[in-house]
Amino acid sequence: MADILHRIGATTSPDTVYKALTTIDGLAGWWTTKTSDAGDDVIRFRFATPQGEDGFDMKVLETVPGERVRWEVVDGPEEWIGTHVRFDLSQEDDYTIVMFRHEGWREPVPFMYHCSTKWATFLMSLKEFAETGAGRPDPDDVQVSNWH
Amino acid sequence: MADILHRIGATTSPDTVYKALTTIDGLAGWWTTKTSDAGDDVIRFRFATPQGEDGFDMKVLETVPGERVRWEVVDGPEEWIGTHVRFDLSQEDDYTIVMFRHEGWREPVPFMYHCSTKWATFLMSLKEFAETGAGRPDPDDVQVSNWH
Repeated sequence: MADILHRIGATTSPDTVYKALTTIDGLAGWWTTKTSDAGDDVIRFRFATPQGEDGFDMKVLETVPGERVRWEVVDGPEEWIGTHVRFDLSQEDDYTIVMFRHEGWREPVPFMYHCSTKWATFLMSLKEFAETGAGRPDPDDVQVSNWH
Repeated sequence: MADILHRIGATTSPDTVYKALTTIDGLAGWWTTKTSDAGDDVIRFRFATPQGEDGFDMKVLETVPGERVRWEVVDGPEEWIGTHVRFDLSQEDDYTIVMFRHEGWREPVPFMYHCSTKWATFLMSLKEFAETGAGRPDPDDVQVSNWH
């Protein structure tokens, strides 16, 4: 098993970051504009690709206001299904720290390398969104390679 | 053991990326301006911190033109010493793909989360430097949190 780990800090309150992780408008502000509520605690994230629409469905496993959000990937690329995503929030100095983990990858496949870099750019988008109200969600996200 | 993985693609030749990874001027163009040759195949990287100068010494283990660069961390923060860094280059479409690995962390400590995000921003700086000749090395690097 292999995990993707990241740590960012946003100069804003844990509550602001928590809202960016738990509301449709918040998630649409930094990850993908095509975010929707699919019912049954499932959030649907879609991305434009050259091959058409692609994306992930996340089952919300746990939300603790200002502290923690946990998802399970219930639909999406085969490598993602069954993996877990978690955001742990805390306060340090003037920052809300986000400890991020996308855990349970079966193999460190090239797609995992790609997703690790993409997560970093999206977490930087989350930081920007939480601090200023404007992030860089898909389709205006940062391109890191030929895989976008 | 835990690894940091990333994948970026730069619209330039493998040779250009290889030079950015194997020359003092290249490394100073995307990682830290305070890069120097310490002799005996060791490259010294220094960073300005609020506590003074900090950094890493890398022993160059392997260089294969246009293909691969491998380093061992021989001095620096305790968590880094003995870990290995590698860059594997290949060509896909119009891109030079860099598969990056910082491997052999003993524990997934918070500092590893931080370094994973910082590596992503420095690899984006490498991409920019290789494509345009101007990256964002320390001290003008992207700040990701209170740990800088």
